[in-house]
Amino acid sequence: MARIGILGATGYTGVELALILEHHPHADIVFVSSEASAGRTLDAIFPGLRGCSKVSGLLLRTAADCASVAVDAVFSCLPHGASAEACLDFLEKGAFVVDLSADFRLHDPRDYPRWYGKVHPRPEGLAKAVYCIPELHRERLSGARLVANPGCYPTSVLLPLVPLLRRGLVGTGPVIADSKSGVSGMGRKALLANSYCEVNESFSAYKAGRSHQHMGEMLQELSAVVPGGVPLVFTPHLVPMERGILTTLYVPLAPGRTGAELREALAQAYRDEPFVEVLSPDEGLPATGHVSRSNRAHLAVVELPEQDVAVVVSVLDNLVKGASGQAVQNWNALSGFPETLGLAP
Amino acid sequence: MARIGILGATGYTGVELALILEHHPHADIVFVSSEASAGRTLDAIFPGLRGCSKVSGLLLRTAADCASVAVDAVFSCLPHGASAEACLDFLEKGAFVVDLSADFRLHDPRDYPRWYGKVHPRPEGLAKAVYCIPELHRERLSGARLVANPGCYPTSVLLPLVPLLRRGLVGTGPVIADSKSGVSGMGRKALLANSYCEVNESFSAYKAGRSHQHMGEMLQELSAVVPGGVPLVFTPHLVPMERGILTTLYVPLAPGRTGAELREALAQAYRDEPFVEVLSPDEGLPATGHVSRSNRAHLAVVELPEQDVAVVVSVLDNLVKGASGQAVQNWNALSGFPETLGLAP
Amino acid sequence: MARIGILGATGYTGVELALILEHHPHADIVFVSSEASAGRTLDAIFPGLRGCSKVSGLLLRTAADCASVAVDAVFSCLPHGASAEACLDFLEKGAFVVDLSADFRLHDPRDYPRWYGKVHPRPEGLAKAVYCIPELHRERLSGARLVANPGCYPTSVLLPLVPLLRRGLVGTGPVIADSKSGVSGMGRKALLANSYCEVNESFSAYKAGRSHQHMGEMLQELSAVVPGGVPLVFTPHLVPMERGILTTLYVPLAPGRTGAELREALAQAYRDEPFVEVLSPDEGLPATGHVSRSNRAHLAVVELPEQDVAVVVSVLDNLVKGASGQAVQNWNALSGFPETLGLAP
Amino acid sequence: MARIGILGATGYTGVELALILEHHPHADIVFVSSEASAGRTLDAIFPGLRGCSKVSGLLLRTAADCASVAVDAVFSCLPHGASAEACLDFLEKGAFVVDLSADFRLHDPRDYPRWYGKVHPRPEGLAKAVYCIPELHRERLSGARLVANPGCYPTSVLLPLVPLLRRGLVGTGPVIADSKSGVSGMGRKALLANSYCEVNESFSAYKAGRSHQHMGEMLQELSAVVPGGVPLVFTPHLVPMERGILTTLYVPLAPGRTGAELREALAQAYRDEPFVEVLSPDEGLPATGHVSRSNRAHLAVVELPEQDVAVVVSVLDNLVKGASGQAVQNWNALSGFPETLGLAP
Repeated sequence: MARIGILGATGYTGVELALILEHHPHADIVFVSSEASAGRTLDAIFPGLRGCSKVSGLLLRTAADCASVAVDAVFSCLPHGASAEACLDFLEKGAFVVDLSADFRLHDPRDYPRWYGKVHPRPEGLAKAVYCIPELHRERLSGARLVANPGCYPTSVLLPLVPLLRRGLVGTGPVIADSKSGVSGMGRKALLANSYCEVNESFSAYKAGRSHQHMGEMLQELSAVVPGGVPLVFTPHLVPMERGILTTLYVPLAPGRTGAELREALAQAYRDEPFVEVLSPDEGLPATGHVSRSNRAHLAVVELPEQDVAVVVSVLDNLVKGASGQAVQNWNALSGFPETLGLAP
Repeated sequence: MARIGILGATGYTGVELALILEHHPHADIVFVSSEASAGRTLDAIFPGLRGCSKVSGLLLRTAADCASVAVDAVFSCLPHGASAEACLDFLEKGAFVVDLSADFRLHDPRDYPRWYGKVHPRPEGLAKAVYCIPELHRERLSGARLVANPGCYPTSVLLPLVPLLRRGLVGTGPVIADSKSGVSGMGRKALLANSYCEVNESFSAYKAGRSHQHMGEMLQELSAVVPGGVPLVFTPHLVPMERGILTTLYVPLAPGRTGAELREALAQAYRDEPFVEVLSPDEGLPATGHVSRSNRAHLAVVELPEQDVAVVVSVLDNLVKGASGQAVQNWNALSGFPETLGLAP
Repeated sequence: MARIGILGATGYTGVELALILEHHPHADIVFVSSEASAGRTLDAIFPGLRGCSKVSGLLLRTAADCASVAVDAVFSCLPHGASAEACLDFLEKGAFVVDLSADFRLHDPRDYPRWYGKVHPRPEGLAKAVYCIPELHRERLSGARLVANPGCYPTSVLLPLVPLLRRGLVGTGPVIADSKSGVSGMGRKALLANSYCEVNESFSAYKAGRSHQHMGEMLQELSAVVPGGVPLVFTPHLVPMERGILTTLYVPLAPGRTGAELREALAQAYRDEPFVEVLSPDEGLPATGHVSRSNRAHLAVVELPEQDVAVVVSVLDNLVKGASGQAVQNWNALSGFPETLGLAP
Repeated sequence: MARIGILGATGYTGVELALILEHHPHADIVFVSSEASAGRTLDAIFPGLRGCSKVSGLLLRTAADCASVAVDAVFSCLPHGASAEACLDFLEKGAFVVDLSADFRLHDPRDYPRWYGKVHPRPEGLAKAVYCIPELHRERLSGARLVANPGCYPTSVLLPLVPLLRRGLVGTGPVIADSKSGVSGMGRKALLANSYCEVNESFSAYKAGRSHQHMGEMLQELSAVVPGGVPLVFTPHLVPMERGILTTLYVPLAPGRTGAELREALAQAYRDEPFVEVLSPDEGLPATGHVSRSNRAHLAVVELPEQDVAVVVSVLDNLVKGASGQAVQNWNALSGFPETLGLAP
């Protein structure tokens, strides 16, 4: 059994990790950290975890207090900026580390001030990390021990877009990603902006264009496929629901290409991937509810007759494939386990 | 006082009309029709209307039974296909008619089979109708007595787009309208697809590309501005909330144009319009909740540095500015009343 | 036109007051106060108010800054404890005052520490106030100038219960009030407890038994009807919705009495009241949606064959009949206007 | 591996069974039946099941078509009235049968017309069935092969109430059960009453008093504990959420008894039960979200000083502990497996 620690366990991704690892045959949870709730148990704060034998009764401890615990792997759900230090410490002690924060997602430390408004606390650590959506970047894990787990929006955008770019199917002109996310993406915080009466019965756009902090990792990863980068336009929206992201991509077609070729390309790219399914035209369009609480993503392509653009829709659960599920998938790969372990169905 | 009849009063737009006309100083409601519920009162079916003096206790009657009632104006909330006949009958008797169905929205009878799957029942009546979003087409009302009240999605798309096209600010390339609607847009029907457990906690795309029936009227109205038409791509989505539409438009800029010029153009176009407000950049982005239960629309433009596309966002309440509110606004204009009568705030 | 001030205008009851007074023919709003948002406009914070001509553009000012404004009436939506002082100041200057906080609801200053955890700041002011649900206590308004506007839960409990007690229809044994409220009852605050993901898809009980602070005013008002008091048991619950309260009362019958007599008694008590309706058995049971955004309450009585208890159900909108609507109703009565002014439908 | 068939698999309880059995180490699913959707696969209708290897790709067949399939156990999710016949057929062929319908819940065939409005189709089969909430009636399973799986409301009422009655802690006078259920309790049907816009933002009471069909089994089971029966009053309510039931019980205390003794009695009764937890006073009150998607129930007791009644609150997930989870628990017990198999956490 691998000894697992969860840093910052009292947010929504921490709780989701506890739920997923409960079903994982090789995971023991040996610590859960929280600065604000140290001394309480995780299941006192989240009574929904009371049936989870691996965390039930486990006392939350401060990160400092957890530093000396022997672990095989650490998942960090600490906030951006606070995570890097703790991750590198555990890395030095020999643990596998999967960081769910953004602290290791960007390769170039100069990008942090632009997207996160602060200087990176440990820029020398960036070179040790790999950014990895397993279905797209699995080969990066070879020899890796520190994974920068991708953001939820980027996963929903890159999964449908990267295979199309790799195959040269995307034309020039802006690629538009219109994304819609449930409220858990805002984190577990006391904010007026996420209070029930502000969110309920309202749908809104925010940080439209190129201003959302997830743009940094998307532009980086798109540039890794297309030298010179992709003119991505990204508009996130807030949906009055707890979880799920749907991204509607408008993809310009390379000359002579068709939407049907895009669908076929995605189907081929994900043919052997248990977590990514490309819907056929008679299966209708994706809904976030179809992948809720699973590590699966559904993709669909809509052809537009007489237009040189296609519509590509992706759905995933922002807390699972967009965060904790993908983190476990990455850890499985790091550890030599089947990627699906603990993650099915 | 004008004598008003409401055909098909037991759907959501019928109820909304009753609520709006309750506040209208010149409206008396003299009939409300329903085939399925004839003999009952409207407020027995909708107890929320019990405080509305104008409909309280009013018996629902069949449309046939209402045909002989003397009225000054009729609002038809009958389904597509069933509405044309009744509207033309009341028109012949001298009433003003505002048809909330699609039966008079398309000028060319050959377009009906394509978008609505059936032959128009009274094609000779099409020439008598004007399609009118008052802020865009007010001049069409001159001499008119039959108004085809625009659809909810088209209102949310045309309000921000038409002024930009008229001023030549839109470049070539696809114009993308990514729309999100609350569930009341599906109507008041016993369907599995609109049942609570199917809709709640899920966000989905449907009829993506150019297949939604509202494409017909959008393409027609865009062609009226740009000869040859506009390459519109339209994807509607279903939001787990009752009411509201948010449309995110991605508009290619004409050469040399900027997003700021788009915002200025919209601000100028709607400067004197009480129901349309263009937000300034420091006011944030629109949310459907901001215009819920009002006849107002909010627009915002997001400039994208170094991109030749701008993001334009619109919000409105699909049952008010997208249906019954706009219908009353149209009737006010037909009748020579101030357009805002009964519709503020 | 009466000059109206709203203290603490940026909470949900303040916004609801602005919406209601917009329709009131005799109300001008001359100030809106906020400590945290002074200098901004109310409709910058609540874009939904932009169509409201009476507050549109009105700058929020601190309460201190508003103290010198000449007003005919003040509605205080300040928090408990902070409201008394400001209310008494305006009262001394000759204004009518309706206090929506709890600061004047209890007659006996010794009750404040028990229910609100602090000593009353101005106990000498309590004798000047009247606690008034107009349908039950209208006569108390004679000569009054300061009204303690009742709480939302107490209104939902007292409206159905007091007429039954007055007529001697209630037997001995506990009277059980099982109440369910929407989330707006928690106020507009940045709390984890009211955040979307904590509230959504969950239903919970809280402060069961006799511990909720609204017990104080309920016990006081019940003792005013039944010397010695009523053994009330009260359990509030939180419903994942924005607004509305439904209270299910289990009322022991006085010997020989029937549920039908209870219904008849309520029907008689509210026969001439425009805001309270007693449903007949064939009209089904109340739903909060039926009275949403209205000042109306619906009551229903269910008879239990062979049981000496009856079920009485009430619904109202906690922000309207349970707060701001009733406040305007009280102010109308104070001012000699028809109680319904601005409140229909 | 046990060969399992699911009759009526396309309702919410059928889907929940498929999800639960996916995790069950000894269950193979060999058929799923549906009259309306025969020929399609279950995961075509419910894309959320696509990751479930045990049903993925399995074709739905008519019940008649499934009759010849060799099975070790059958779960029937058929509607009331339609289930009995099929259950008895499989029983005769030697299968264990767990019937989630009401067809075998009442011992006396004369009770069916009263509560279900029709004569029982196979009254001679009633004697073969046992009604079983395992924590209360486990001993009834000895030798049984046909289990009448209890209703969701009855499970939420009997779990907290029966142990108190057995220990003689309940006094005379009405026992009040005020229950609140999510919308999935209405089943998966195209009804106006369960459509999103009718349910959302509204909370309502229905079938108050003693008229709900679940009264039949509750009265029967209470009479089994207290000769002469218990004067139960039961009011169900509809909550705008998908799943979960919270029942607030008002229990008269036997002379000299206290709420603390009730809590202690429940704690003792469920001390060794993995699925039922009795909260201590410092743990707060239950919320349905705490047990969502689990087979667990949480109970809490609130003592009322100076009152001879106590408040007891229970929560469970109506689709799991209130239906499919309890069905698997019953099947586990029938089959000699640990009751928790496939059901944790």
